[in-house]
Amino acid sequence: MTTLQETVKAIGTRARLASKAIMRATDQQKSAALSTIADLLDRSHDVLTLANEKDLAQAKSHDLSGALLDRLTLSPKSLLLMSQSLRQIAAMPDPIGSLGVTTVRPNGMRVAQMRVPLGVIGIIYESRPNVTIDAAALCIKSGNACVLRGGSEAFHSNMALVAVISQALKAVGLPESVVQYIETTDRDAVGYLVTMTEEIDVIVPRGGKGLIKRLQEQARVPMIKHLDGNCHVYVDKAANLETAKQIAINAKTYRYGICGAMETLLVHQAVAADFVPMICEALSSLGVEIRGCAKTRALFPDAKEASAQDWAEEYLAPILAMRVVDDQTAAMDHIAKWGSGHTDAIVTQDIAAADAFERDVDSSSVYVNLPTCFADGFEYGLGAEIGISTNRLHARGPVGLEGLTTLKWVLRGEGQTRG
Amino acid sequence: MTTLQETVKAIGTRARLASKAIMRATDQQKSAALSTIADLLDRSHDVLTLANEKDLAQAKSHDLSGALLDRLTLSPKSLLLMSQSLRQIAAMPDPIGSLGVTTVRPNGMRVAQMRVPLGVIGIIYESRPNVTIDAAALCIKSGNACVLRGGSEAFHSNMALVAVISQALKAVGLPESVVQYIETTDRDAVGYLVTMTEEIDVIVPRGGKGLIKRLQEQARVPMIKHLDGNCHVYVDKAANLETAKQIAINAKTYRYGICGAMETLLVHQAVAADFVPMICEALSSLGVEIRGCAKTRALFPDAKEASAQDWAEEYLAPILAMRVVDDQTAAMDHIAKWGSGHTDAIVTQDIAAADAFERDVDSSSVYVNLPTCFADGFEYGLGAEIGISTNRLHARGPVGLEGLTTLKWVLRGEGQTRG
Repeated sequence: MTTLQETVKAIGTRARLASKAIMRATDQQKSAALSTIADLLDRSHDVLTLANEKDLAQAKSHDLSGALLDRLTLSPKSLLLMSQSLRQIAAMPDPIGSLGVTTVRPNGMRVAQMRVPLGVIGIIYESRPNVTIDAAALCIKSGNACVLRGGSEAFHSNMALVAVISQALKAVGLPESVVQYIETTDRDAVGYLVTMTEEIDVIVPRGGKGLIKRLQEQARVPMIKHLDGNCHVYVDKAANLETAKQIAINAKTYRYGICGAMETLLVHQAVAADFVPMICEALSSLGVEIRGCAKTRALFPDAKEASAQDWAEEYLAPILAMRVVDDQTAAMDHIAKWGSGHTDAIVTQDIAAADAFERDVDSSSVYVNLPTCFADGFEYGLGAEIGISTNRLHARGPVGLEGLTTLKWVLRGEGQTRG
Repeated sequence: MTTLQETVKAIGTRARLASKAIMRATDQQKSAALSTIADLLDRSHDVLTLANEKDLAQAKSHDLSGALLDRLTLSPKSLLLMSQSLRQIAAMPDPIGSLGVTTVRPNGMRVAQMRVPLGVIGIIYESRPNVTIDAAALCIKSGNACVLRGGSEAFHSNMALVAVISQALKAVGLPESVVQYIETTDRDAVGYLVTMTEEIDVIVPRGGKGLIKRLQEQARVPMIKHLDGNCHVYVDKAANLETAKQIAINAKTYRYGICGAMETLLVHQAVAADFVPMICEALSSLGVEIRGCAKTRALFPDAKEASAQDWAEEYLAPILAMRVVDDQTAAMDHIAKWGSGHTDAIVTQDIAAADAFERDVDSSSVYVNLPTCFADGFEYGLGAEIGISTNRLHARGPVGLEGLTTLKWVLRGEGQTRG
């Protein structure tokens, strides 16, 4: 009998083999695969809805929350969004094969770097069937094979979607194993996957911090991962306060649950008397709870008292920590101490303040006069996003197609030898 | 009493703090630090030689091999090479702070990526005191703090070199903790270092495969590492055979012990009758043992019989595996199956053959008409090299200053909000 470990290993071996084919595929082939998936999706609403209904029935019997049910549901609209996304990714320029600047060495040999696929990507995610399509599309376009593992609540939906993907790959002459799905709902399968350093080049975990921390303990394969998003907006003494207000409101209230949501607002003491009451009233009226330092509370007595825990917290909720700081250095020190290196912004009209903040704040995204909620690959112009990375190595910040590639050196000569 | 783990942790904490300072240092400061180290080295030959003699005396009493003693010795010449290297790295352009292409989004916000230091680098190496200087110089120039741990045989030499580095850092107003050395010879210290994900951003192990495999088992911090260098030269049917001969001789005999040394020569069957005897005679006369496939042995009966093990072997010795292949596809299949993805070369005059090899061979360096022994950061024009990476993520191939950096996103706007 085949053990689970052998099954997962065999999936990895097939993925490695398939990666050799998709690595060499032309953009024409890869884009045709994506368009074909889109066409098939458009024609398969009935089958997909039927599979999805099985998942929904089970989910309801397990009392899943409304938000989870919402993410799990394949509606005609969500299916249409999937095929639109596929066609958009198909239309993007192929990242593979492009050469950077070629330099000529003193002996005449030419040195350049060529963009190439990473190889095999393992993607582990929760019960959101749209990730199955997005992840597969990004991997195909970037010339990678992938092994997918979604949440068990979406099992039937994912299997139906993967069947469509297989059919499309076959139709355009690419191996079906370019996109594989781990069919068992046994959690141990993920444990095997993240340790298969021979077969898997990188793991992209998408989901809550609990999932990612657990995988981090087990993984031997490198991960492109996202941990905390404790984002700050600092309102400088040279800020336009009306602009600062719009930015702070947008950063907090665009969506409370996204990783780019502002969690702490820092205000320069020179503008605190004007700005703190103004922003606190605006946010309070929008239902945001303010937790402030003593100076904040002196200016807005309705604010609750902030503890050190509040500086560390990623609320993902209508709560905002607020602190009046002595100067920009104090603001940057606060961000360095309490921030998570995700996305932090300054609001200022002073070019020196902007430059210093941009240079010295060590976060994956640093903004001047913009709300932190812009932290998103589409907003950056990446066209698509596999996730946001809080790693320092390889991909940092929003990760698009390029984050799923790497560079190899290519050298050309005419028989030069090393002396 | 402080435990060893606490000691290593405290070193990491100091390094993290120091990294915040060196990260913000100007190139003037960083280059001044390197020039000052060079000046101090030039004036400290006596002290350094005295410390080195202690190590040499111990090494001799432990019967270290001649090659190891050679690497361990600080001669006036090797000290001069160190200060030259320091001045060269000082003169290189600062990689930090440069901005890539800025794109403007439809809403007017500007998006770019800025090159920034990785943070804290842990470097683990064998008993080569010159690595102490090289590694520290590359880290300082790239704005990183580092924690060094060299082989115990070089302990006194390394401590004397680190004292010089500390003196120079202090002289230019940078924290001495930018470069720290783990002073204990207890091996467990390395085990703690490679798991300190809070304090250390990346580990660069330099040394034999044994060391690296051991670290790979223990490490939780990402590593920029080098494993095997099983490099191939493929002589195509459209090769200029005289060029092919020069390339093969250089690739094998430039230095047997380097990771870019050719270990297997693949020859297209159409040119085998001409080329195999020619190259085998030339290499044999240089003392290289040939281990060939049946077709090779039919053309050069002195060749020993190659087994599958020979295709896998990284000899690092005057031994060469040789195989006659049906065509270029067979050559590339051989490289895909047996190679280590390090450096592989084709010799050909045919542009289609060259392009296909360059595109489809999945190695960190792929050459056309050049010997594999060029695999070196200086040869590529990187100016300096911390090592060669066989990773796929982040840095791949020779790693210079840029490999010790990462990118952050910087966005500027005028108060745009997300709708």
